Amino acid sequence: MTIKFAKRMNELKASEIREILKLTQQKDMISFAGGLPAPEAFPIEAMKVVAEKVLTEHGEAALQYSTTEGYEPLRQKIAARMNRLFQTTVDESNVLITCGSQQALDFSGKLFLDEGDVVLCESPTYLAAISALKAYGPRFREIAGDGQGMILKELEKALEEEKNVRMIYVIPDFQNPTGISWSLERRQDFMELVNRYEIPVIEDNPYGELRFEEERLPALKSMDRKNLVVYTSTFSKTFCPGLRIGWLAATPDIFSKYVLIKQGADLCTSMRSQMEIAEYMESYDFNANVKGLIDLYRRRRDVMVDMLEQTMPAAVSFTRPGGGLFLWVELPDYMDALELLSICLQQKVAFIPGASFFPNGGGKNTLRLNYSNMTEEKIREGIKRLAAVIRSQLKAADASI
Amino acid sequence: MTIKFAKRMNELKASEIREILKLTQQKDMISFAGGLPAPEAFPIEAMKVVAEKVLTEHGEAALQYSTTEGYEPLRQKIAARMNRLFQTTVDESNVLITCGSQQALDFSGKLFLDEGDVVLCESPTYLAAISALKAYGPRFREIAGDGQGMILKELEKALEEEKNVRMIYVIPDFQNPTGISWSLERRQDFMELVNRYEIPVIEDNPYGELRFEEERLPALKSMDRKNLVVYTSTFSKTFCPGLRIGWLAATPDIFSKYVLIKQGADLCTSMRSQMEIAEYMESYDFNANVKGLIDLYRRRRDVMVDMLEQTMPAAVSFTRPGGGLFLWVELPDYMDALELLSICLQQKVAFIPGASFFPNGGGKNTLRLNYSNMTEEKIREGIKRLAAVIRSQLKAADASI
Repeated sequence: MTIKFAKRMNELKASEIREILKLTQQKDMISFAGGLPAPEAFPIEAMKVVAEKVLTEHGEAALQYSTTEGYEPLRQKIAARMNRLFQTTVDESNVLITCGSQQALDFSGKLFLDEGDVVLCESPTYLAAISALKAYGPRFREIAGDGQGMILKELEKALEEEKNVRMIYVIPDFQNPTGISWSLERRQDFMELVNRYEIPVIEDNPYGELRFEEERLPALKSMDRKNLVVYTSTFSKTFCPGLRIGWLAATPDIFSKYVLIKQGADLCTSMRSQMEIAEYMESYDFNANVKGLIDLYRRRRDVMVDMLEQTMPAAVSFTRPGGGLFLWVELPDYMDALELLSICLQQKVAFIPGASFFPNGGGKNTLRLNYSNMTEEKIREGIKRLAAVIRSQLKAADASI
Repeated sequence: MTIKFAKRMNELKASEIREILKLTQQKDMISFAGGLPAPEAFPIEAMKVVAEKVLTEHGEAALQYSTTEGYEPLRQKIAARMNRLFQTTVDESNVLITCGSQQALDFSGKLFLDEGDVVLCESPTYLAAISALKAYGPRFREIAGDGQGMILKELEKALEEEKNVRMIYVIPDFQNPTGISWSLERRQDFMELVNRYEIPVIEDNPYGELRFEEERLPALKSMDRKNLVVYTSTFSKTFCPGLRIGWLAATPDIFSKYVLIKQGADLCTSMRSQMEIAEYMESYDFNANVKGLIDLYRRRRDVMVDMLEQTMPAAVSFTRPGGGLFLWVELPDYMDALELLSICLQQKVAFIPGASFFPNGGGKNTLRLNYSNMTEEKIREGIKRLAAVIRSQLKAADASI
């Protein structure tokens, strides 16, 4: 039997990582691998109340098909919250509810990309954005970053050199995987450049609300004079992932095309889940819930950074994120994080090798650590084990430091 | 500002129908237009119990990210039910949970179709399958049907003539839009042909459980000697659409590719919704719920068919479905269902003009009626109004009959 699949399937291959990660689900594993929120912070009791109320008051509508655009009261609340926190000026007519923000990434590929078109992205960048977009056959050109965001000289060079740039994909707040957040100035300068070249930007902002210390910075979308930015976010990190509710916000011309795509892709998102989040935001203190997560994740970040500082040799560097769920580790050039992982798994500690976050290869000596999903105690123990394995692999010159 | 969209967006246009259908949401409209189940049959009280139980017993897992494949106990129940009702021989490892069966259609386009490839489908066929697949740029070749299913001579002719056939899309049970169901013999002969030509088949079966009179017939998937059939179905018609839980069943080689596609498209389906349906199937009588729907929809079908027989002129023909949600009406050649609709809307009765169900155009004198969503009283009144409008548009020769 010789079934012919679409050409795009040559690009979409099962990653060896995924197979390895199945091992991380063992009970005694200390896993810094996934991107999971802390389940002990899920508002389970509130959800029971909310679920009962929605079924009592809107049962038939909650369980029926709904409009593709989404539940209007929730779209209003999302727009208001975006405007308050990130200085945007959107309203409910800009907001399309999606099945997590991952769906907004898939739709963006479908909307903007023909085979061979160019996507500009950070280097490294979110691995599931790479898989979502790859289905549409683009070429990725990675733009290096510094601690403040994308390096704009490199971006401008790419915009000059590449003829078919159709999208710039960025995560300006506590990037996945590095944890780096763009400075205000970098955001402004980036948008100047984008407005000049008139290229659509996908601003992926799942972590922006989880800023641990300073004031939140305005979204790129708030500087979007030419309506080029499609902003996407999710309730997965500020509430819980299991409801699968995300959204995108775009100007009407672009919004209407996303609606057409969503009709073909899955008709609509669960009305019940949308009503539940809207009801929760109405009856409970959503900000307090986010504040609780910030406090929890800040402590975990502190513990992880402290432990890294205490245990890692000088040849290993790492980021110190001001928010979000992840930090990024660079090992000496000669080390391979994938090999390291197989040793670490025997020691019952897991992470994601960084190579998966580079669409064009490279990054073998990097890795991503998640600190949101493990207790402080496990973070301490896990980093100890990780450091011990890394030290065991160091060349003598590095080990002596 | 001149954003360039992907070429596929030229194919995905907002239908005028959609705009018209917004009018059908007026309170006093008798709408035969949508494909909505009867909301008064949703098991709302049971859902309250189930929701509470799932959050109490599995709260953290229910609200967390989950595996892309889906919740194993639900996948087991689905496989067992398919095997019992439709004589398939699948197990949970074949079953991928999707966000409604619509998502399985989108994924099928992504998996099988390059631009210019050929999809063979019934004529007419499900309009949202057309939109899902269109995003991948295929050409549709429609195969005419008779009362027993696809005409196999025509199918064989197409298989001989077309070089790039990558998929045959069919709805053998109570097809949307015609309500026609394939005979057992036609199913067997179809699968003989398919097995000979080795072309993947998407068997879309959302309505098969809703068979009003006779015994259920085996699915094409049950005759799938060469593992060519991807079977898809949903809980939207047998339980409720608002949970957005559907599935597909495929052989391991194909299944694993769908999993890759789902990872990029939306990571996973709501674990809570999956657990709720599994819990419902465990604690309640799912068959009794389906039986209730069959009784309800059979009565509504009876009323609609009776009324059509009483009121329609001889120049108008219509199907008498043995299950499902829809029937199909053919008007005299010179009539245009879209024009008819605009008159009907003034009379507060709505339907979908049939042209939308023909991917290559045509069918202007056809229309689809839904009987699941309106009470018997409204069906009586609505068909009276529809018949009056049709009679007012008849040419004298037809009117006199």
